[in-house]
Amino acid sequence: MKFTEYSKEYIPKINDAITLIYDRKLKSVENPFLKDYYSELKDYFLSGGKRIRPLLCIATFNAFTKNQDDKIVLPSIGVEFVHNASLIHDDIIDKDNFRRGKPAFHFRFRNYYQQYNLKKMIDVDFGNSIGIIGGDSAFFLGLESYLFNEFEKDLNLKAINYYEQAFIEIANGVLIEIDMVNQKNLTMSDYIKMISLKTGALIEKSILIGANYAKVNEDSLKDLSIYGINLGIIFQIIDDILGTFGDEKVTGKPTDGDIREGKKTCLLIEALNKLEDNEKNKLEELIEKPDMTIDDVQEVKDLYLKADVINSCKDLANSYFKEAKLSLDRLSRVINQPEMELFENLLDFVIERKF
Amino acid sequence: MKFTEYSKEYIPKINDAITLIYDRKLKSVENPFLKDYYSELKDYFLSGGKRIRPLLCIATFNAFTKNQDDKIVLPSIGVEFVHNASLIHDDIIDKDNFRRGKPAFHFRFRNYYQQYNLKKMIDVDFGNSIGIIGGDSAFFLGLESYLFNEFEKDLNLKAINYYEQAFIEIANGVLIEIDMVNQKNLTMSDYIKMISLKTGALIEKSILIGANYAKVNEDSLKDLSIYGINLGIIFQIIDDILGTFGDEKVTGKPTDGDIREGKKTCLLIEALNKLEDNEKNKLEELIEKPDMTIDDVQEVKDLYLKADVINSCKDLANSYFKEAKLSLDRLSRVINQPEMELFENLLDFVIERKF
Repeated sequence: MKFTEYSKEYIPKINDAITLIYDRKLKSVENPFLKDYYSELKDYFLSGGKRIRPLLCIATFNAFTKNQDDKIVLPSIGVEFVHNASLIHDDIIDKDNFRRGKPAFHFRFRNYYQQYNLKKMIDVDFGNSIGIIGGDSAFFLGLESYLFNEFEKDLNLKAINYYEQAFIEIANGVLIEIDMVNQKNLTMSDYIKMISLKTGALIEKSILIGANYAKVNEDSLKDLSIYGINLGIIFQIIDDILGTFGDEKVTGKPTDGDIREGKKTCLLIEALNKLEDNEKNKLEELIEKPDMTIDDVQEVKDLYLKADVINSCKDLANSYFKEAKLSLDRLSRVINQPEMELFENLLDFVIERKF
Repeated sequence: MKFTEYSKEYIPKINDAITLIYDRKLKSVENPFLKDYYSELKDYFLSGGKRIRPLLCIATFNAFTKNQDDKIVLPSIGVEFVHNASLIHDDIIDKDNFRRGKPAFHFRFRNYYQQYNLKKMIDVDFGNSIGIIGGDSAFFLGLESYLFNEFEKDLNLKAINYYEQAFIEIANGVLIEIDMVNQKNLTMSDYIKMISLKTGALIEKSILIGANYAKVNEDSLKDLSIYGINLGIIFQIIDDILGTFGDEKVTGKPTDGDIREGKKTCLLIEALNKLEDNEKNKLEELIEKPDMTIDDVQEVKDLYLKADVINSCKDLANSYFKEAKLSLDRLSRVINQPEMELFENLLDFVIERKF
């Protein structure tokens, strides 16, 4: 089954499960501000996103069960809560006011501020405050997907264990990335370690949570884990490429963001490792400038192209693609055919995607 | 047994359990920045605090078990993680740079920033970013107290349910408090509802988690719940009184903070409800001033004294004290004597405390 077909079947069910959790919360509160708060969270969660993580959780469960059962949908959304909660906090940290073409969560409350007459707090602080609490709420609400479903208690406890591990690994990845801004002579191996945590861990755990509910054995878990982490790595490499060389009209993101931020993308690390000393120094100097001009950004892009980084990063992605394929080959004897196709198709989708 | 004796016996054990969780995390990371990060979190957690919440969890467990067992200590610390994680985020929101006489968690990283040569991020943003992630980590690490202990899985799952509820109620309380800044004509009943959530819920859940592990029956749970929420309400009322009329040398907190912040304390609400119109208008005008002088603060305090708010707030605390006592009376037949004394002693401590 193709990824698009799988999405078509399950995304409405995933959205229903998210709605269920928020509507229960909305019913439980009377205060008008709390009602607005949970409505905004709900709306934020339902405003798009590819739902790759819950889809992978569902697919893994289905891959190992004879009779497919929609009871997996509810616990599949926990990982989407971690993902969105992280985005809410990331957008505050990165001062990004928009997400998926709509206002970021904290930014919605910066606007909401106008409804108040607050003399001791400015709008930015108000938005950030509600944003911090909003991310926290979403991290906790994700637990409800494991607390109120139809599976056995020991499976739910194990799922919460994965849920916790996923966040700790994401946080470690994000912290390493922050620290990297200050590090010189980074290798591609440093980069891969960082993105395995920042992006790979949650995709891996989405798969392992699905496998947990299907009671998959240890051997297969290992291969599923390899597949998931590699899928995450590829996803992030392509994300980095699209972040600078994508089509803004297709990605919906400006192509100067990563460069202006000085983000340690695979493009930058690869260029710094490949360029001659004088060009390397020039690149470092440009990237460190607090206010880059349009010409500076273009110069960085030119240096990237000179170092042929797109091709080498695509080669890099391909090496992880091959490793993921091998793990799928090993799983082929135990996995149901429609999901086998889906896993392969998703791998193709992630490496070929333009958005 | 007295609260001080109970603290003396269990606080070292509570600190050992906190250390266990952080040392496991420290062992699992190699990156020097991550090591510093988890060390700072550990140090922050071990820098004081009365540990009322884990102590109540332990005491409730002991109150209903024949053979006391230290295995309750590990799951008792989950609530301390929620408490500290909330403080980390609160201090960012309130821009408080110190906590318990030491630097707040985000402020430690504002200082740490000096070790970096970051050209694209200022120190305040760096501190706040690490602070946001720090609080998140602590919320998740608290789950480990329920995931890796010696109790049965269904009890641990139920404990996580309380853990989640506790945060949701705290967040609702904090959000209602933020919204209150904009509300006129607040009643004492609005205030009590808010602090029941903001402060009462976590104290109640600390007790219910202890009761859960001791498999206490439904009837007793109801009375434990009443005791916990009322204890929290009294705690917050006294906190409000000490925040303005306490001895700075004893509390370690300045007595102008709540007034300058325009916080809706029981003192303010009571004064607004009791004063004549012209004085009420004056008080409102003063409280809303963005930059209050020392004289403004003194004028607010004088109006509080004129309205005799300390006595009426103490009377209010007393009414909740009586209700808590009644719930203890009903529990006296089923509760062990040393913990019965502790619960009574804690109630006395909380209402009489000067710090």
